[in-house]
Amino acid sequence: MRFDRLIKALLPRDDTFFTHFEKSTQYLIDACGLLRRLADSKPQDRPAIADQIHDLEHKCDMVTHQVFASLNATFVTPFDREDVHVLASALDDVMDYLDGSAGRFVLYKIKDCPKDMLNLIEILTSSVKEIHKGVVLVRDLDRPEMLQETLKKVNEYENKADAAFEQAIADLFENEKDPIQVIKLKEIYVGLETATDKCEDAANVLESILIKHA
Amino acid sequence: MRFDRLIKALLPRDDTFFTHFEKSTQYLIDACGLLRRLADSKPQDRPAIADQIHDLEHKCDMVTHQVFASLNATFVTPFDREDVHVLASALDDVMDYLDGSAGRFVLYKIKDCPKDMLNLIEILTSSVKEIHKGVVLVRDLDRPEMLQETLKKVNEYENKADAAFEQAIADLFENEKDPIQVIKLKEIYVGLETATDKCEDAANVLESILIKHA
Amino acid sequence: MRFDRLIKALLPRDDTFFTHFEKSTQYLIDACGLLRRLADSKPQDRPAIADQIHDLEHKCDMVTHQVFASLNATFVTPFDREDVHVLASALDDVMDYLDGSAGRFVLYKIKDCPKDMLNLIEILTSSVKEIHKGVVLVRDLDRPEMLQETLKKVNEYENKADAAFEQAIADLFENEKDPIQVIKLKEIYVGLETATDKCEDAANVLESILIKHA
Repeated sequence: MRFDRLIKALLPRDDTFFTHFEKSTQYLIDACGLLRRLADSKPQDRPAIADQIHDLEHKCDMVTHQVFASLNATFVTPFDREDVHVLASALDDVMDYLDGSAGRFVLYKIKDCPKDMLNLIEILTSSVKEIHKGVVLVRDLDRPEMLQETLKKVNEYENKADAAFEQAIADLFENEKDPIQVIKLKEIYVGLETATDKCEDAANVLESILIKHA
Repeated sequence: MRFDRLIKALLPRDDTFFTHFEKSTQYLIDACGLLRRLADSKPQDRPAIADQIHDLEHKCDMVTHQVFASLNATFVTPFDREDVHVLASALDDVMDYLDGSAGRFVLYKIKDCPKDMLNLIEILTSSVKEIHKGVVLVRDLDRPEMLQETLKKVNEYENKADAAFEQAIADLFENEKDPIQVIKLKEIYVGLETATDKCEDAANVLESILIKHA
Repeated sequence: MRFDRLIKALLPRDDTFFTHFEKSTQYLIDACGLLRRLADSKPQDRPAIADQIHDLEHKCDMVTHQVFASLNATFVTPFDREDVHVLASALDDVMDYLDGSAGRFVLYKIKDCPKDMLNLIEILTSSVKEIHKGVVLVRDLDRPEMLQETLKKVNEYENKADAAFEQAIADLFENEKDPIQVIKLKEIYVGLETATDKCEDAANVLESILIKHA
């Protein structure tokens, strides 16, 4: 046993971090639901939905700041400080890209949400739900195989998102003749794809916690 | 008091970091002034001004390298090593994006600087001036409310820059019919907006120093 | 001597990291050769070559994961843990951008590789070869001037790549009249240029190791 782990094992654990992460991943699930609704809505209804997503982004931001503040104040954390930091940042990033994509969809006055984009939103939603599960499972670490399974799914969704993204961009270049439209849609696709990347970053931290504590 | 802070409180402080940061933020103020002049100049006069900005970027780079070298050599720093590192990187990034935007303005042969871009340059200039104030105030930390006020302003400028950027991009898509021009201007807008983001990163480090030492 | 270095000097060294880094930089050299071949090939032959590059990316990924896993498991590393981490990440990033550029070249159905792009591939290849040399030289650190020389070359290639990139983009805007083509090629140029940036990041870590241990 490494000396720092011995020290940690002897010290009491601080469980508030788990509660924070469960909260922010729940916000992410809610935001995905809203994003899906935004894509299906009439243009005039979209700004209000984008505002709701932006509210969730704000709430998620506040949770992230609480985590960072606690990290500075707490000597004892349930896992390595660096892991807590990277996990909080990754979850915050997922929300930022999600919110940014919704905002651009409205700002750029996209008329119809392409099928490829709906597909990407669905994959992101699935990934976010697994991340939430992972964050719940990491609290007790008493079902490591189940956590492992959850993290594997996030990786699979990331690969699916990658392929869906590449296909969407190729289709866009092939079929969309208005270059301005290409620029607009491509930027939203990049935002959504980056959000799934950040889910994978979150899963990687959870995996490293699993390895260290298993 | 955490043990590492106790140790730190007992050790002498190294003040050269402050001098470095005051220098690099002064370079940033100078570069903003030049950028504003570049935007107002005739095309034929712009390359010389962009070169002057690039010289400042080079000087700022040298300061950053000195900070990193000192970090490796010095056991004692006025604040956490990680904070010094992140602050130096953020200031260096502000300069890089500023310099990159000036360079692209010349390279892409932009004819007239759009009003939205002048607006963004002005917000960046205001933010950079507050960062300089913040770096001066963090040296003694004897006027925490004044530092707090300064950092609040940086955050406000960031929000203003965000809104100005979104508006600029929406206008660009709405009114600029030449897609190549859209690509060029959008890239410069992104550079300027990212520069104000990096100012906020710098302000966040200053805030965390304030919290730890207040 | 700082206390942590004293501790380190008294402990045995773990040399497997060097082997990992030599392997991944060799993959990078191979990938550069394939990228060059891809650029020279007929369109119908390109997908198979891009697949080979993607296989190398996958192998490089596995090496990176091994490094990260060893970092968590090993108390003793030949250099600072943080340096090992940053170096592994930088090498992994070089491969990702290289692989991404090859993939886009195929996906976007680029007809002819522009001369400016061949030029950038050549500079990247030279830089990658120096990084491989650097990784070999850092193992023993018995020829510090030679390592220094190698790292200086990486920096020179980075500057060359910067200039080549800027010229390529300016040419693209000047001469390519199809905006969709501009978007496609620009993205590949950015990928290649970012790959050389990441080589410089790797060189910077090697330099900091050299400074600490010289």
